[in-house]
Amino acid sequence: MSIPSIRIQPYCLELPVWITDYLAQQPETYPTPDARMDLVITLAQLNIQYGTGGPFGAGVFRLDTQELVAPGVNLVLSSKSSMAHAEIVAMLMAQQIVGSHNLGAIGFPTHELVTSCEPCSMCLGGISWSGVRHIVCGARGSDAEAVGFDEGPKPANWIVELEQRGIAVTMDIRRTSASSVLQQYVQNGGEVYNGRKG
Amino acid sequence: MSIPSIRIQPYCLELPVWITDYLAQQPETYPTPDARMDLVITLAQLNIQYGTGGPFGAGVFRLDTQELVAPGVNLVLSSKSSMAHAEIVAMLMAQQIVGSHNLGAIGFPTHELVTSCEPCSMCLGGISWSGVRHIVCGARGSDAEAVGFDEGPKPANWIVELEQRGIAVTMDIRRTSASSVLQQYVQNGGEVYNGRKG
Repeated sequence: MSIPSIRIQPYCLELPVWITDYLAQQPETYPTPDARMDLVITLAQLNIQYGTGGPFGAGVFRLDTQELVAPGVNLVLSSKSSMAHAEIVAMLMAQQIVGSHNLGAIGFPTHELVTSCEPCSMCLGGISWSGVRHIVCGARGSDAEAVGFDEGPKPANWIVELEQRGIAVTMDIRRTSASSVLQQYVQNGGEVYNGRKG
Repeated sequence: MSIPSIRIQPYCLELPVWITDYLAQQPETYPTPDARMDLVITLAQLNIQYGTGGPFGAGVFRLDTQELVAPGVNLVLSSKSSMAHAEIVAMLMAQQIVGSHNLGAIGFPTHELVTSCEPCSMCLGGISWSGVRHIVCGARGSDAEAVGFDEGPKPANWIVELEQRGIAVTMDIRRTSASSVLQQYVQNGGEVYNGRKG
């Protein structure tokens, strides 16, 4: 008995067009955590400016060459996909580029995820499985919550949990700058969708 | 200064071909949690049998008509994407089908996620943002951990956290049957990848 209502089309996610143009004008390397965070904060700002999504940016970098492997921005509303948080987008794009589900596979350089805001519960789990070995966070979860976003069901000791899985965590890089992106978004009437942050 | 190494191709995820054929031979409705769980357990078994992924199946159902909206199976290795856990796959396919990031939007029927195994930390967060209002679990996280999979950084009170967000949780539906899929997979030499379960 057929189920004609199920059309199982592929799920496809594309980065906004402006990202390619923007990155083409940037340096090839990002030698410090501050430099990497400045990039992902700018991605968050541009994402709002171009109307392509929420106030969150991310990037996966390779630490041997300090190059960006893949960027990510929040695409929940524009892609109709609650999974499309900036961190998830950056990680899945990076995995496609390197050709593996595991960015920490033998033979790969160390990969770092930089995110303009502390990961929500979904992104926290996603980070655990991705193979990244460092994460660098800008704004804190409390900064996102202060403007109405929800972090979701995260354990209080999430940093320890990541460290136990071989993932180092650096917090508060450009925190003020990253938080201001969230504040301005909400002050300008940006939608704080049920899908929360990311 | 261009970054020629970044080719920002779309990320695309496709369900395996066998799913369409299999579902075409199933009933149109799944009137009970047991019936829905039997389907997703079979999806997990077939996923292993056809070599398309890990021992996990899921589905998003609409509870008004008891129809399947979208299936999901673990596609981490085959899609080179650590995000492609069965629950995530089912939810993102369902959102594409209904045309919204929020399966709980006003005017939509109640959507339920049925999963052959308790969600990992990433899927737990994903569930929180998806708009589903019920989840039904087969095997427990402890059953997955017993065969080597990792649940990730989940809070101990994850069920309460979901309930506080308006998501009801039913556990242990066909637990023995669902657990046996995990056990057989590992006994037959199935890969317990770093990406853990899902």
